[in-house]
Amino acid sequence: MSDRPSTPLLDQVQYPADIRKLDKGQLPQLCKELREETISAVSVTGGHLGAGLGVVELTVAIHYVFDTPSDRLIWDVGHQCYPHKIVTGRRDRIRTIRMGGGLSGFTKRSESEFDPFGAAHSSTSISAALGFAIANKLDGTPQRAIAVIGDGAMTAGMAYEAMNNAEAAGNRLIVILNDNDMSIAPPVGSLRNALARLVSSGKYLTPRKLAAKVASHMPAPVQRAAERFEEYARGMVTGGTLFEELGFYYVGPVDGHDVVSLVEVLENVRDSDHGPMLIHAVTQKGKGYSFAENSADKYHGVVKFDVVSGKQEKAPPGPPSYTQVFADALVGEAERDPKVVAITAAMPSGTGLDRFEKRFPERTFDVGIAEQHAVTFAAGLAAQGYRPFCAIYSTFLQRAYDQVVHDVAIQNLPVRFGLDRAGLVGADGSTHAGSFDLAYLCTLPNFVVMAAADEVELTHMVHTMALHDSGPIAVRYPRGNGAGLILPAHPERLEIGKGRVVREGKTVAILSLGTRLAEALKAAEQLEAMGLSATVADMRFAKPLDEALIRKLLTTHEVAVTVEEAAVGGFGAHVLTLASDEGLIDAGLKLRTMRLPDRFQDQDKPDKQYDEAGLNAPHIVDTVLKALRRNSVGVEEGVRA
Amino acid sequence: MSDRPSTPLLDQVQYPADIRKLDKGQLPQLCKELREETISAVSVTGGHLGAGLGVVELTVAIHYVFDTPSDRLIWDVGHQCYPHKIVTGRRDRIRTIRMGGGLSGFTKRSESEFDPFGAAHSSTSISAALGFAIANKLDGTPQRAIAVIGDGAMTAGMAYEAMNNAEAAGNRLIVILNDNDMSIAPPVGSLRNALARLVSSGKYLTPRKLAAKVASHMPAPVQRAAERFEEYARGMVTGGTLFEELGFYYVGPVDGHDVVSLVEVLENVRDSDHGPMLIHAVTQKGKGYSFAENSADKYHGVVKFDVVSGKQEKAPPGPPSYTQVFADALVGEAERDPKVVAITAAMPSGTGLDRFEKRFPERTFDVGIAEQHAVTFAAGLAAQGYRPFCAIYSTFLQRAYDQVVHDVAIQNLPVRFGLDRAGLVGADGSTHAGSFDLAYLCTLPNFVVMAAADEVELTHMVHTMALHDSGPIAVRYPRGNGAGLILPAHPERLEIGKGRVVREGKTVAILSLGTRLAEALKAAEQLEAMGLSATVADMRFAKPLDEALIRKLLTTHEVAVTVEEAAVGGFGAHVLTLASDEGLIDAGLKLRTMRLPDRFQDQDKPDKQYDEAGLNAPHIVDTVLKALRRNSVGVEEGVRA
Repeated sequence: MSDRPSTPLLDQVQYPADIRKLDKGQLPQLCKELREETISAVSVTGGHLGAGLGVVELTVAIHYVFDTPSDRLIWDVGHQCYPHKIVTGRRDRIRTIRMGGGLSGFTKRSESEFDPFGAAHSSTSISAALGFAIANKLDGTPQRAIAVIGDGAMTAGMAYEAMNNAEAAGNRLIVILNDNDMSIAPPVGSLRNALARLVSSGKYLTPRKLAAKVASHMPAPVQRAAERFEEYARGMVTGGTLFEELGFYYVGPVDGHDVVSLVEVLENVRDSDHGPMLIHAVTQKGKGYSFAENSADKYHGVVKFDVVSGKQEKAPPGPPSYTQVFADALVGEAERDPKVVAITAAMPSGTGLDRFEKRFPERTFDVGIAEQHAVTFAAGLAAQGYRPFCAIYSTFLQRAYDQVVHDVAIQNLPVRFGLDRAGLVGADGSTHAGSFDLAYLCTLPNFVVMAAADEVELTHMVHTMALHDSGPIAVRYPRGNGAGLILPAHPERLEIGKGRVVREGKTVAILSLGTRLAEALKAAEQLEAMGLSATVADMRFAKPLDEALIRKLLTTHEVAVTVEEAAVGGFGAHVLTLASDEGLIDAGLKLRTMRLPDRFQDQDKPDKQYDEAGLNAPHIVDTVLKALRRNSVGVEEGVRA
Repeated sequence: MSDRPSTPLLDQVQYPADIRKLDKGQLPQLCKELREETISAVSVTGGHLGAGLGVVELTVAIHYVFDTPSDRLIWDVGHQCYPHKIVTGRRDRIRTIRMGGGLSGFTKRSESEFDPFGAAHSSTSISAALGFAIANKLDGTPQRAIAVIGDGAMTAGMAYEAMNNAEAAGNRLIVILNDNDMSIAPPVGSLRNALARLVSSGKYLTPRKLAAKVASHMPAPVQRAAERFEEYARGMVTGGTLFEELGFYYVGPVDGHDVVSLVEVLENVRDSDHGPMLIHAVTQKGKGYSFAENSADKYHGVVKFDVVSGKQEKAPPGPPSYTQVFADALVGEAERDPKVVAITAAMPSGTGLDRFEKRFPERTFDVGIAEQHAVTFAAGLAAQGYRPFCAIYSTFLQRAYDQVVHDVAIQNLPVRFGLDRAGLVGADGSTHAGSFDLAYLCTLPNFVVMAAADEVELTHMVHTMALHDSGPIAVRYPRGNGAGLILPAHPERLEIGKGRVVREGKTVAILSLGTRLAEALKAAEQLEAMGLSATVADMRFAKPLDEALIRKLLTTHEVAVTVEEAAVGGFGAHVLTLASDEGLIDAGLKLRTMRLPDRFQDQDKPDKQYDEAGLNAPHIVDTVLKALRRNSVGVEEGVRA
C-alpha cells in the first residue's frame, strides 16, 4: 500500500512502439521508472517480484530493438513478465495481477498479442520460439522469435532438446540466457559451474568488440575457419562451447542491467547472420530494490509489502501448511529408517524439503528442474534398496509421466510420490492446478494412490508410504494450511485400500477423497437438518479402491455421491467402473460423481475456485437433492420407463 | 532357419564369471562366436539385430572388466541386449526372444540379476545408473554403475538432465557412449555434429595414452590446473568439451570393435578417480554381418532371415498397415493445404513420415528422440498459423504429457496428434503398449480424442483433424495391418463428437471404440444366433462423447457394453460418468465396460494378448450373457433388493 511513484517517461509508454520513439539516452530513466512501477504494483498485489526486477533492462532493450509483436518474444516461466505487461498495454490492470478476474501472473495468449505463447511451467520457451521461427522460415518472412530463459530453466531436458534442434531456424531464433545464478532455489548441477566459469572470466563483452566479432566480410571458408579457431580460443577462456556444441553462436557474457549496452548488443545480434544466437546476460534477481537484492529467495514470490520498509504483510497466524506437515513427517520417517531419502526438482522450499535437507543433507537430492531425471533416479535408488520419496507438485509430475509409467510402474519399484498442490491452487491459476493426477495415475497397474483428508491423515500416509515396499505409492495433498489438528506422536500405518467411515447415516452416502471431507461433513449436517441422514466416508485410497466399503455404502443407502478435487477420469470414474463391473448399477443406483469441471479455471482464491467448480458443501447438498428428486418424480427416462 | 554355428569358446561361458577366466587374447575369438550365435538366434526369432551386433565387443569387455552383477550394467533402450543375455545365463532361451512366454526383447529385472534395470524406452540409463551409484555411495560400497547409451538416445532431454547431475556420483558412474551414428533413423541435431567432430579428429585414443592421461600423482591443485588446460586443449582438437561442461571426464574416441583395447581402456577407467567418466566408443551397427552393415536401417528390427543369403522372410502379402494409411492420408492433406506440416521424434519410418518426407521434405521435422520438444515446437507452429501433425506412438507421447497439458490443451492450440501403436503391440510387450492415452488425454479439457475402427475411418479422421482449427485433436490407431478395405478417393470430414451405428438391433447395444469393432460385429452375430438382437455402434469419439447416441442406446436396449483397447479410466469410464451425471443409471442400467486388464501384459502375438485381455468376440458375448443372466436370476444385491 504505497503512493504511486512519479513516472513521467513511463507515462508516455503504452505500447512498445512508444519505447521505440525514445532516444537511447532516455532508456535508463525509463528503466528506473518501470522498476519503481513494478515494485509499487507488486507491493499492492503480491506476486513474483524479484524475477521481474531482474529483467527490467532486458524488457526495455528487447522491445526497443525488436519489432514486437511481429517479432515474437517468449518469456520462459512467464513470472518475470510484470514489466513486460506494463509496457504492452496492460499497465492499467497491473494492480489486478494474480487476482480473480485480473491479469494472469504469467504470460497468456488470450491477454495480449504481445504474449504469443503462454508459459508458466519452465523451459518451454526455446521449443515454442523454434516453432515460431520455423513457421516464419516456411512463410519466407524475416520475423524473429526471441526466448528469454533463466539459467535454472536451462537444466530441464526440454531446453536441451530444443537447443539441439535450433540450427534449422538460422538467425530467426535468438535465445537470451538470463543468468541470475538463482531460479527459485540456487541452481544445481554442472551447467551452473560452466556458466560460472563464463562469468568469472571477468569482462563483459562490449558492443564494440561484439560488432567486430559478428561482422562477416571474409570469404565464407576462411571466415568459418577463423570462427572455429575463435570459438575454441574463447572456449578456452570462458567455456562457452557448451552452447556452441549445440549449434548456437554464443555472445557474452553481457551486463544485463546496462540498458544502453544491451540495446547495442541486441542491434548487433539482430543484424548478424550467424545462425541461432545465444546471448548470455548476467542479471541480479530483485535488482534495484535492496530488500529483494539481499534476499532473493524471500522476494521470489511475495505477499503485499511496504515499499519503504520492505516489510511483507504477515499472513494471519494459522495452522502449518500441508507442505510443512509432509516435510516434518518425512523427517520423522528418515529418523526411524536410514534408507529413506528425498528428491526434489528445484523446489526445496516449495515442497518443504529444505526442512528435510537441514536434518539430512546427505540424503536430500535437488536435481534441478529435471522431473524426468528425478523419477528415474529415484527408481534406480529403489532398485538398489533405498526408500526414495519424490516430492513433486502434482502439476509438475506431468513432466515425468513416462518415467512414472516405464521406470516405476512397469517395474513395480517402490518409489514414493508426495504430490503437493493437488487440486486447485489459487493465484497461480490453471497452469499450476493439480487436476489430472488421479486420472493419469489410477489408470496405471501396480500403483497405490492416496489423498489426505487432513494433516493427521497426511502423517499416517507418509508413514504408510515409508513402509510400503511392494510397489509405487503416491499421496496427494493440497496447497495451503491444514485444519489445525493436533498431529499424532506416532503416525499409524494404514491398511492399503481401506477407507474409514467418519459419520454414520442411513439415506445418503458421501464418499469423499481428499480435503473436500470438511465440505462433505458440512453437507451431511445440512442434509441431516432436512431429514436426510448421511454417512460420510473418507475413502483415503483412489487405488486400490476399498471395494468392500463401496459395495456396502452403495447398497445400503438410497443415494451415493463421490467427491474429489480432480478432473474426470479419477476416483469417481473408478467407483462407477467397480459398480458397473459388479452389476451394482443394474439394481438402479442413485450414484453421482462430483469432480472438477471439464474446463481450465483461471486464478482466484481457492474457495472461490471450488465454488466455481461446484465442489463446496452446498453443491454436495444440491447434488444429493437433485438425485433424490429426479427419482422420486420419475422424470428419468430409463430402460424400464 | 540356419544350422547352429560352432562356438567352442562361447560354450564354456554361461555367466560373466566364465568370461573373466579367459585370457585377454581369447576375447576376440569369444566375440566372433558370440556374434555368430547372435546372428543365428535372431535368424530364427526375428528381432533387433543390428544394435546387438554393434555391441558384441562392448558386452564382452564390460563383463570382463567389471564385476557384474554387483557392478550394475544398464543398457539404454535395451534392444542391444541379446549378446548380453547370451552370456548372462539365458543362452538356452535366446531363441524364444520376443515370443509369448519367452525372453523379453529388452532388459528386464524379473529375468535376471544381470538386468538391474529394465529399459525399453530410450535415454533412461544415466538417470537409473546414477540412482545405483548414489545408493552405493550412501552405502559406502565401491560398486560402479555403467550405462551404455547410444548417440541417438543422447538427444533426449532426460539424458542431459542426468548428465547435469552426474558429478555427485564421483567415479561410481561410468557412461559409455555407443556412437554408431545411427539410432533407428539417422540422428539429427547439433549433438550429432559435435560427435562427428570428435570422431573426425582421426585417431583413436590408445590405452597407453589413456593410462598417462588418467594417472594422477600430482598434488591436487596442480593436477586440476593441468587437467583444465588439457581439457580445453583437447577440446580445441576434438570438441569433447560438451560432456566436460556437464561434469564428465571425457575419454575417447575409442574403437568399439577392438575388444582388447576396450578391455584396457575400461581397466584404466575402472582404476581412475576422475569422477564420472564418459567413454566415447565408436561402433558400427550390424558389425560383422555384411547384410546388416550395409543396410543398418533394414536390419534394425528384422523378421526371420536366412543367415547365408541375408534374405528376410517375406511377410505374407496383406493390406497396408495403419501407419502407411495414416502417412498417405497425411500426404493427401498436405497436398491440399500448404499449412500442414509433420513432426516425428526419431521415428520417421515407424510413423510412416518417411513417406511424407519424400513428398514434402521442407515440411517434415524429425527432432530426434525429443518428444517434449516435438510437442511444444508443434504448439509454436500452431500458434503461428500452421497445422502441425505430431506423429508419435501412444506409449512415447507419455514423454510429453506436460507439454500436451500445458502448451497445447491449456492454450487450446490446434496441434494434431497421430497416436500410432495404440492398444497392445505384440512382441514389444508392456513397455511399448499404448494403453493409457485414453485416460490421460480424455481427462483434459479442450481435447478431441478419436479412435479409428478401420483404415477407411482413419483417412476420414486425418481429414477431420486437418480441418479442425479450434483446438487440439488426436487419433489413435493400432500397430499392424488394416482390414483391407478400399480407401475412399475423397475422405469425409466427420462431425466432431458423433458416432455411427453400424448394425441395428434391439436387445443388446455394443458401443465400440477403435478396432475392436470387428470383434464387436462378430459378437453381435453370435448373440443374434442365440436370439439376442444386437446393435453395434462405432463411437469414433472418446471425447467429446456422442451424448445423444449414448443416451439413446442406453435407454432403448436391455444391456449395453463398451469396448476399447485401453486401460481403465478411458472411454468406458466416461460413458459411465455421463450415464451417472444424467441419472440414467438410476433406472437400473445393465451397462458394462470392457477394457484392458489392470496389469501389464507381457509380449505375445496381439491376438493372444487380446485374448488374455478378454477383449475378443467371445468375451463380449460372455459379458453380455453374464449381465443378462445375473439380472434374470436376481443374484444382484441392490438398494431395492
